[in-house]
Amino acid sequence: MLSHVIRRVAVVGGTHGNELTGVYLIKKFQQFPDLLKRSTFETVALLANPKAVALNRRYVDRDLNRCFSRADLANPELTGYEDIRAKEISAQLCPKYHHGADFIIDLHSTTANMGLTILPSSKHPFNLQLLAYLSELDRSVRVCFRDEDGQDSPMLRSLSAFGCTIEVGPIAQGVVNAHLFQQTERLVRTIVDYLDATNRGNPLVIPSYLTAYQAIVSVDYPRNAVGEMQATIHPQLQFKDYEPLHPGEPMFLTFTGESLPYQGESTVFPVFINEAAYYEKHIAMLLTKKQQLQLKTA
Amino acid sequence: MLSHVIRRVAVVGGTHGNELTGVYLIKKFQQFPDLLKRSTFETVALLANPKAVALNRRYVDRDLNRCFSRADLANPELTGYEDIRAKEISAQLCPKYHHGADFIIDLHSTTANMGLTILPSSKHPFNLQLLAYLSELDRSVRVCFRDEDGQDSPMLRSLSAFGCTIEVGPIAQGVVNAHLFQQTERLVRTIVDYLDATNRGNPLVIPSYLTAYQAIVSVDYPRNAVGEMQATIHPQLQFKDYEPLHPGEPMFLTFTGESLPYQGESTVFPVFINEAAYYEKHIAMLLTKKQQLQLKTA
Repeated sequence: MLSHVIRRVAVVGGTHGNELTGVYLIKKFQQFPDLLKRSTFETVALLANPKAVALNRRYVDRDLNRCFSRADLANPELTGYEDIRAKEISAQLCPKYHHGADFIIDLHSTTANMGLTILPSSKHPFNLQLLAYLSELDRSVRVCFRDEDGQDSPMLRSLSAFGCTIEVGPIAQGVVNAHLFQQTERLVRTIVDYLDATNRGNPLVIPSYLTAYQAIVSVDYPRNAVGEMQATIHPQLQFKDYEPLHPGEPMFLTFTGESLPYQGESTVFPVFINEAAYYEKHIAMLLTKKQQLQLKTA
Repeated sequence: MLSHVIRRVAVVGGTHGNELTGVYLIKKFQQFPDLLKRSTFETVALLANPKAVALNRRYVDRDLNRCFSRADLANPELTGYEDIRAKEISAQLCPKYHHGADFIIDLHSTTANMGLTILPSSKHPFNLQLLAYLSELDRSVRVCFRDEDGQDSPMLRSLSAFGCTIEVGPIAQGVVNAHLFQQTERLVRTIVDYLDATNRGNPLVIPSYLTAYQAIVSVDYPRNAVGEMQATIHPQLQFKDYEPLHPGEPMFLTFTGESLPYQGESTVFPVFINEAAYYEKHIAMLLTKKQQLQLKTA
């Protein structure tokens, strides 16, 4: 029995200071709290990294969305700006505290062509049913599993078992796009309505199958001996997130014009293709497998 | 008689450290100098702001491409990183010095949908003829006049009367796009070939007309009393650079969903629409007028 589970919802933006869709949505939700107000739970709208927002940078000292592992949160020697923010946010949102959040939505954007993508905090049936509902309601919404269940994720969404990250793209860092802003706002409000209906014991109709993309491995750009990039995404793969990539198809194009094929043995579905923030993480894309999951209905 | 004018050409990239098209093109030109080598002149490929490139930011202390006014270059009290780089680059490229450059190409990128845009250093007939040649050769190449002739421009391109900035977009900061990389490389090599032909006294065929977009005024985002943005580019205008905007057509969409029209009295052609780096400069777009110029042929 999953009803009446949600007492407090946190909508978070600006975890990365230059992902402005979330930043301006949080400002809007803070100015008009009624947009997210539902009688069966409290909602809080939180700007996670105000200093990075003010600087219009992803982060000040290190990526806030990699600061939430249990070990790092418990480590008093980590005292960078984001380390301290992570501890503060954890204290504010962790469900074991009085004011904890039972459901966290963390708003991000990407330079990859991922449309609206939902990455759940866990594969808990509660999340899977929500995801199936959302992707049935709007077929352009895609579901990506990045973490393994039980893994100690360093991401903000891991503070609660229920919830998700929303990625929207393609959009440049430091930019607001009206259309993507409206799409993201609509998705957040749909989730809040769903949670409210579930709390009331009037659950919405859930399809019995869910299509999802399970991340398998990341691929780095080809680099030379001193680590400099020697190639970029092949024009045939650029902006082709969630489309099948077959063995032998072009993956990279070197700066001297040579095409480098995908050398795997099975068809994959790349995502986060040419994400700006992942250059420094040595990730050119994530390869995923497309899955059909049958849901256990209550 | 304009032939034999060019003795040294400078191709500059990384003036903004997160505009990677230029950064990686300069690295390529430095690795393969033959690509720009022509017998009638010397070519140098220069990374303008290596510290900002290393940080993957537009600039360290202030925008390098606003540091080249005569007053600032002569002011010994300006000692920020970019102020010092501007003085060094000026000493290296100014045509009055022994190793000066007679023609400067400064490579930039934009999040606006400006395709390949050329902004000349001046309206000198030598530049206008080159621009007419380039835009005739490839109709997708557009010409934008941003500076007034004789104005003391703070931009790097102003170090030489001959030359231009190349903008390419739409592309996110911190990203290389293979297609736009190749387009930009082709344009630089076409310019170098043109200069070589001119030097040899074998000038290429120049059309007698040039279509150009003259910047008139910039428009800021609507803001509240404390300067916070209240709207973003209207979806109907987003990515519509160089298309006509008529009086009364939608310009902005507020975060609460209200459409704000363009209130000017004449049709304009906006450019740099929703350029990420211009948020802090309070520029939502530049309005231009479309012009047909008749060229004086030699």
